[in-house]
Amino acid sequence: MIALTDQDLLFPPEANSRSLARALYAGVKDLPIVSPHGHTDPRWYALNEPFPDPAQLLIVPDHYIFRMLFSQGVRLEELGVPALDGAPVETDGRAIWRRFAEHYYLFRGTPTRLWLDHVLEHLFGIEAPLDASTADRHYDAIAAQLSQDDYRPRALFERFNIEVIATTEGALDDLKWHRMIRDSGWKGRVVTAYRPDAVVDPDFEGFAANLDRLGEITGCHTGNWAGYLEAHRQRRAYFREFGATSTDHGHPTAETANLSGAAAEELFNRIRRGSEDERERRLFRAQMLTEMAKMSLDDGLVLQIHPGSWRNHSPSIFQRFGRYKGFDIPTKTDYVTALKPLLDAVGLERDLTIILFTLDETSYARELAPLAGVYPALKLGPAWWFHDSPEGMRRFREMTTETAGFYNTVGFNDDTRAFPSIPARHDVARRVDCAFLARLVAEHRLREEEAHELAAELAYTLAKKAYRL
Amino acid sequence: MIALTDQDLLFPPEANSRSLARALYAGVKDLPIVSPHGHTDPRWYALNEPFPDPAQLLIVPDHYIFRMLFSQGVRLEELGVPALDGAPVETDGRAIWRRFAEHYYLFRGTPTRLWLDHVLEHLFGIEAPLDASTADRHYDAIAAQLSQDDYRPRALFERFNIEVIATTEGALDDLKWHRMIRDSGWKGRVVTAYRPDAVVDPDFEGFAANLDRLGEITGCHTGNWAGYLEAHRQRRAYFREFGATSTDHGHPTAETANLSGAAAEELFNRIRRGSEDERERRLFRAQMLTEMAKMSLDDGLVLQIHPGSWRNHSPSIFQRFGRYKGFDIPTKTDYVTALKPLLDAVGLERDLTIILFTLDETSYARELAPLAGVYPALKLGPAWWFHDSPEGMRRFREMTTETAGFYNTVGFNDDTRAFPSIPARHDVARRVDCAFLARLVAEHRLREEEAHELAAELAYTLAKKAYRL
Amino acid sequence: MIALTDQDLLFPPEANSRSLARALYAGVKDLPIVSPHGHTDPRWYALNEPFPDPAQLLIVPDHYIFRMLFSQGVRLEELGVPALDGAPVETDGRAIWRRFAEHYYLFRGTPTRLWLDHVLEHLFGIEAPLDASTADRHYDAIAAQLSQDDYRPRALFERFNIEVIATTEGALDDLKWHRMIRDSGWKGRVVTAYRPDAVVDPDFEGFAANLDRLGEITGCHTGNWAGYLEAHRQRRAYFREFGATSTDHGHPTAETANLSGAAAEELFNRIRRGSEDERERRLFRAQMLTEMAKMSLDDGLVLQIHPGSWRNHSPSIFQRFGRYKGFDIPTKTDYVTALKPLLDAVGLERDLTIILFTLDETSYARELAPLAGVYPALKLGPAWWFHDSPEGMRRFREMTTETAGFYNTVGFNDDTRAFPSIPARHDVARRVDCAFLARLVAEHRLREEEAHELAAELAYTLAKKAYRL
Repeated sequence: MIALTDQDLLFPPEANSRSLARALYAGVKDLPIVSPHGHTDPRWYALNEPFPDPAQLLIVPDHYIFRMLFSQGVRLEELGVPALDGAPVETDGRAIWRRFAEHYYLFRGTPTRLWLDHVLEHLFGIEAPLDASTADRHYDAIAAQLSQDDYRPRALFERFNIEVIATTEGALDDLKWHRMIRDSGWKGRVVTAYRPDAVVDPDFEGFAANLDRLGEITGCHTGNWAGYLEAHRQRRAYFREFGATSTDHGHPTAETANLSGAAAEELFNRIRRGSEDERERRLFRAQMLTEMAKMSLDDGLVLQIHPGSWRNHSPSIFQRFGRYKGFDIPTKTDYVTALKPLLDAVGLERDLTIILFTLDETSYARELAPLAGVYPALKLGPAWWFHDSPEGMRRFREMTTETAGFYNTVGFNDDTRAFPSIPARHDVARRVDCAFLARLVAEHRLREEEAHELAAELAYTLAKKAYRL
Repeated sequence: MIALTDQDLLFPPEANSRSLARALYAGVKDLPIVSPHGHTDPRWYALNEPFPDPAQLLIVPDHYIFRMLFSQGVRLEELGVPALDGAPVETDGRAIWRRFAEHYYLFRGTPTRLWLDHVLEHLFGIEAPLDASTADRHYDAIAAQLSQDDYRPRALFERFNIEVIATTEGALDDLKWHRMIRDSGWKGRVVTAYRPDAVVDPDFEGFAANLDRLGEITGCHTGNWAGYLEAHRQRRAYFREFGATSTDHGHPTAETANLSGAAAEELFNRIRRGSEDERERRLFRAQMLTEMAKMSLDDGLVLQIHPGSWRNHSPSIFQRFGRYKGFDIPTKTDYVTALKPLLDAVGLERDLTIILFTLDETSYARELAPLAGVYPALKLGPAWWFHDSPEGMRRFREMTTETAGFYNTVGFNDDTRAFPSIPARHDVARRVDCAFLARLVAEHRLREEEAHELAAELAYTLAKKAYRL
Repeated sequence: MIALTDQDLLFPPEANSRSLARALYAGVKDLPIVSPHGHTDPRWYALNEPFPDPAQLLIVPDHYIFRMLFSQGVRLEELGVPALDGAPVETDGRAIWRRFAEHYYLFRGTPTRLWLDHVLEHLFGIEAPLDASTADRHYDAIAAQLSQDDYRPRALFERFNIEVIATTEGALDDLKWHRMIRDSGWKGRVVTAYRPDAVVDPDFEGFAANLDRLGEITGCHTGNWAGYLEAHRQRRAYFREFGATSTDHGHPTAETANLSGAAAEELFNRIRRGSEDERERRLFRAQMLTEMAKMSLDDGLVLQIHPGSWRNHSPSIFQRFGRYKGFDIPTKTDYVTALKPLLDAVGLERDLTIILFTLDETSYARELAPLAGVYPALKLGPAWWFHDSPEGMRRFREMTTETAGFYNTVGFNDDTRAFPSIPARHDVARRVDCAFLARLVAEHRLREEEAHELAAELAYTLAKKAYRL
């Protein structure tokens, strides 16, 4: 019987290259996982309760999965995705799982397929491919295991060999789960990251109320610019108490600004009064990236910019099901013009780290590698989201390495809330990087001992260094 | 003697991958041809007359060929391309053929070379490479065969194992050739497709007269919006009588609009009076894509959008030789913003099929795959025109599969008016897809039995399903 | 001991393809170097003085090198890069060299690494990898050789087997070094190229004074349009006396214009008076590309357009260190719209050669190949600057060949002022092209004898033909 995931998965077929890739991979496959950017729920680690049924764990929260089924005519309700108005949706885990299994062939050629097969085999010991005929059997096997103690979050965390994982919390979060983890005495290292979109983006739902709340939490007067900035500083300090080493910013574009203090203050006042001027609202977001970078100069937090997603492209789906329903679509993203004000302000700082991500691969070779290859403050985040895939990672390396080198990149981010898939995602990334390095060695562009060093840097060291973990 | 086309053409050189590719290809090479989108002349099948001389068949009408020779200094007149003003051009087929043969080396590395070598070998039994020294010999061999009955259109149609082919006719076409085919009792399945550019695009030559004519044909009052829409409905119904399962739209951009009925009516009235306002004319084209999609909801026709070609880039060539002279140049094309009005209106419909094409490969991974990977109404057309080539098809698969999967694509379109090259074009597509699948199997990303299933889907089944043929 | 550069460098690992690549490379590796576009200093060939110390030769002037070190926190001063205000910088060649050697690992995976290893091994006979431990030893070995007569510029020129090399001089240059070379009786062929940016671009420093100076040199009245154009004609004629066969234009965009004589004259008058209108200044640059093309019709000079670099992106670095400090960043570049006025004017001319370069790879398949594949006046320059690299050159071939063919490209440009690296750069280009051709043969897309012919065309013949050398 063929295992679901072959030991040579993703390695080049040519014998010499394959053997090089195997050797490189052997040196990194057991390195601890450093997960510096992701969206797992800290509550899991805090409460350490068993995970729910297979469908609730693996299908319902995974937008990669339900968007594909939806594209082929399966309704979100049939997959148990909750409707905002409380309209009834499928709640039978087994029914959801069967529906998924029948459509699993749709994922051929996708990373979801690789991740899920890896989870099935390595986490749940399953060897037969998932389809309609095996759906029930696999469901039962997974459900049985999930009820065991060694499948609880902390046990999995340890089994996964996670050295450190970052979650992401909004600026208004009280970090109570993080506090509970810290107070529990458990040794697992779970840190937070500061994601202030809700108090930085005037287009965020409830922006004005969010700023009021920010004032309450911090005791700062968020009705004026100085107090507002101070409130950010306090929250950043608070997040740092819970291990944060980074901030994260999900703006529609990479636009930045560097207004004078007076102009920024005046802009804040207009925004605070609820400006309806789209340009002002954009300018405020742009200015806040530079403000965050300046605060990073003081407190050492690494700044992550994740631009270029058109969120909630379908208003109908947004209205019925809310955010993160697979309808976030990448857009053309400019960096060279957009980042200039920020870079003019702080781009030459050698103690600052700004990590750039993109959903627009055309920027890799044209803009991002040339920028990160000269500005000391800039580093390149890994292939992101739709590009967190074998072909996407390969293109990332092929289009950035020659100009930015490997050392202006920051290793891998799993960026996921699908906790059980974390080892699979890191495994895919390690394999793709080993395959890429093997090609360079096979083409005599790199010596083998250098490739071994690089394999470990890409799998482990660069992430720790770049994120200061 | 080496054959012009090797049995391993386009397969990966590594032994294991090659053997996988061979096995996959063996399973699909003899599948019938489904050609759901193309531009062959229905008159050929209707009259079933012998094709003219080799040059008139293979060189003069093929813009891939004469644009390359033109780029290297050969004048269009020397290639027999007719001038609009009736100025004399080369009419001696043999002279044209010799000129082509002398320059055939220019096509090294191009798909035209693969297609033509395939035609020479498989259709005409030629084994020696075409160059100046073999030009006459090959010309004579081809000419002799073209005069035989088994080289007439219907015989070739059958020999090519074409299960169904779609032609494309304008909205004003009387479909008389299609009627003749239907009435002839011949079993070959030739269907039409509805291409209404001339009555939808205010910039089309003779737009106002075309609308008058549309009114005459249908008996509808095309002086008002309701009558104009009704005329479309009638023409669509008429085209469906002749087998049409699709419409086709060649707009400069993918812009769509979804105006209220009143606003659309008012816009139509201004356009009908000959509006000179470029924005209005664009808006009308944009609105009509949405109108067509709404009609498709009723009548089931598949909607194809082919945007992003700057037609007739050289005014001098356009003036002297007219359209389709190799001067249509791709442009940057946006989909995420452009399609939003259409998608807001009908994008979630599960019974609607809209097939998107692009000449801007940057949209594959960034826009098209994410859109088609979630909107039920959207599917991705194959690599188009300049990208209908081995590297182009490979990039298409590499950049769309991981996000949209295989099942949101629609198989192959030959999109050609070069009838003799149809088997060659399908053969290249099948080989490239088998090579891609072989790579996935060799890298253990797919099981071999899945690849066999997919090879048949990509070569045959998906086209039938997507186009409802 | 492993040599620094393997004999199979950059060849595909699969045995059959590798053997094909070797055979192709064997046929071209010893062809003379034709370097039709570059920036070596003609003074070197004129005076034939020994090159300075290893750091001054190999590190200090190479922006590929110091930008990478700067991105990782090394200051430009530490690398001996001169500050404009004369502030002290490192002058000890050995100290600079050690700093570089310690950071040499940063270049893993970059072309700089390939070029430098090639220079170390093939020019200086070094076999041990460069790092901190070998830095001094290698420094001494290189320094000792540089002091020998057979490492002077002319000896290297001959050893490198350079058949002809072009330098680039500004329109105001007196070409005295070229005169000295010519008068010296040395047989090395060094030609100039006409680069008029300083008298064509209103944003160039000292533009008005430059035009005055242009008038003085030529005796033309550069206060009016006719005199200004005549001055260009005279300078072009003068440059042709010193072997120039080309002009070169480094505009921010590819924008062109084709104003009437009267409108152009009026525009010139406003520009000459120092127009502050950015649109006018852009339009003037655009118009001048067309004027240059028209002059090329008369005097036969090949026109090169190098658009799309945002020069001196960091104002702080520009102020302290000046131009060419690694802060030139590529930008999105349009060709289809931008070139239309120029192409409408002269694009169909068969005796004109315009060579297009890009830093925006998205234009290869979408715009440049379709344009060059039909307009007789257009040819495609090779992968440029950040894309002059193995992956960059491979993408260039993969994205242009199928539409433009090989024969609408112009061979390789080394584009360098790093004289010792010229053989390395041509060697990398020849290897990458041989590898690409080997793949086409291995996939049966090309016959082996055709690949041999093409390998020589790409390595040697096309450059001579396209540049009329």
